[in-house]
Amino acid sequence: MGEEVPCYRVHDHRHPISGDGEGDSDPVLDIYQLSCYYFGSKDAMATVAARDETPAGRAERMRINYEANGLRTCVEAVMMVELFKHPHLLLLQVRNSSFKLPGGRLRPGESDIEGLRRKLTSKLSADGAGDESEWKVGECLGMWWRADFESMLYPYVPPNCTKSPKECVKLFLVMLPSSRKFIVPKNLKLLAVPLCQLHENHKTYGPIIAGVPQLLSKFSFNMVGDT
Amino acid sequence: MGEEVPCYRVHDHRHPISGDGEGDSDPVLDIYQLSCYYFGSKDAMATVAARDETPAGRAERMRINYEANGLRTCVEAVMMVELFKHPHLLLLQVRNSSFKLPGGRLRPGESDIEGLRRKLTSKLSADGAGDESEWKVGECLGMWWRADFESMLYPYVPPNCTKSPKECVKLFLVMLPSSRKFIVPKNLKLLAVPLCQLHENHKTYGPIIAGVPQLLSKFSFNMVGDT
Repeated sequence: MGEEVPCYRVHDHRHPISGDGEGDSDPVLDIYQLSCYYFGSKDAMATVAARDETPAGRAERMRINYEANGLRTCVEAVMMVELFKHPHLLLLQVRNSSFKLPGGRLRPGESDIEGLRRKLTSKLSADGAGDESEWKVGECLGMWWRADFESMLYPYVPPNCTKSPKECVKLFLVMLPSSRKFIVPKNLKLLAVPLCQLHENHKTYGPIIAGVPQLLSKFSFNMVGDT
Repeated sequence: MGEEVPCYRVHDHRHPISGDGEGDSDPVLDIYQLSCYYFGSKDAMATVAARDETPAGRAERMRINYEANGLRTCVEAVMMVELFKHPHLLLLQVRNSSFKLPGGRLRPGESDIEGLRRKLTSKLSADGAGDESEWKVGECLGMWWRADFESMLYPYVPPNCTKSPKECVKLFLVMLPSSRKFIVPKNLKLLAVPLCQLHENHKTYGPIIAGVPQLLSKFSFNMVGDT
């Protein structure tokens, strides 16, 4: 907790507070072609992804965890690549069905960035790669809240939430380097899905992932190396 | 165009590039109670809002404008107030039916911030108030694109958009002061709508407004004066 955790941001043509005189320079996000990356698999199973339980069982587990540790916070990564001149989001697919953003639950006392790096390394790096510091975690793009253990997530604290919310899911932009290896547990698949397929497609991807195109819409994508 | 246009931003507990060691401090947006503001009406009609035309007529008008001036850019304001301890968005309602964010189309050569301030003054200020510089325009929250004159808007440049896109709608956060007067043309109503009513409610508000709760979800709302 005490160590220095650098926080990277995308480059931004604007000056933070001072005048800019233009008002039309948007933040730019560099993305690289899918072919810049190597994708492999490892033997380990992703323990959380493999958990099989009923909705009631899940609510009960969350209740016990809340009593022990308070608000449950999950951190998830938004990582973009280019394919066919269109931005694609990296998603994990569990057993050929549900999709999720790479990430997971924070340990008690862990910071967002520390926890996200730990989760990205455990799910996307080779065993013992020790490259946690290499994940360039950028700004928080959005937060979703759960008022109680059974209810849905919303992109605000629900107005009927009289007590403290029980869960928060935070999405962070993670900037990929110009090349790297992704090594994924064998019960998961890593997919690059075009923004145009995600947009408003709640049925397939759920509300959080289906809203990612909007969360990214303030960025101009710079497709590096594209001719 | 040559004058300095200050660009305000919400306060942000993070340091832009340097390490923060915490990773859990989100940007904070101060909002004030609805009762802090005065709402009145003026005799003038809002000319754009009062325009009555067919979809084909609109496409033809956009095509002529595109040939003369290139990409059509609209700038719109996201302004928040508090009511019943929940954030509400200010929306204009046209003739008891459609809803729109305050804003409008840029003039050729006009900057986003200049144009948004001009539109906010013409739609929300008393005639001759001359308070354009008082509108605190913050960051761009999102952009929506139209590939051609007939198609829908998307929160990305559509992948089938082989030529240049024809229209861009940019949403900007506008921070309200602790009190002010809003004077609205008599054919428009200014409403405060709770985020929980907007979320995913495309049918009533259209996709852009229904997505505003997600665009704001990275902010922690500080309800000033709330006890």
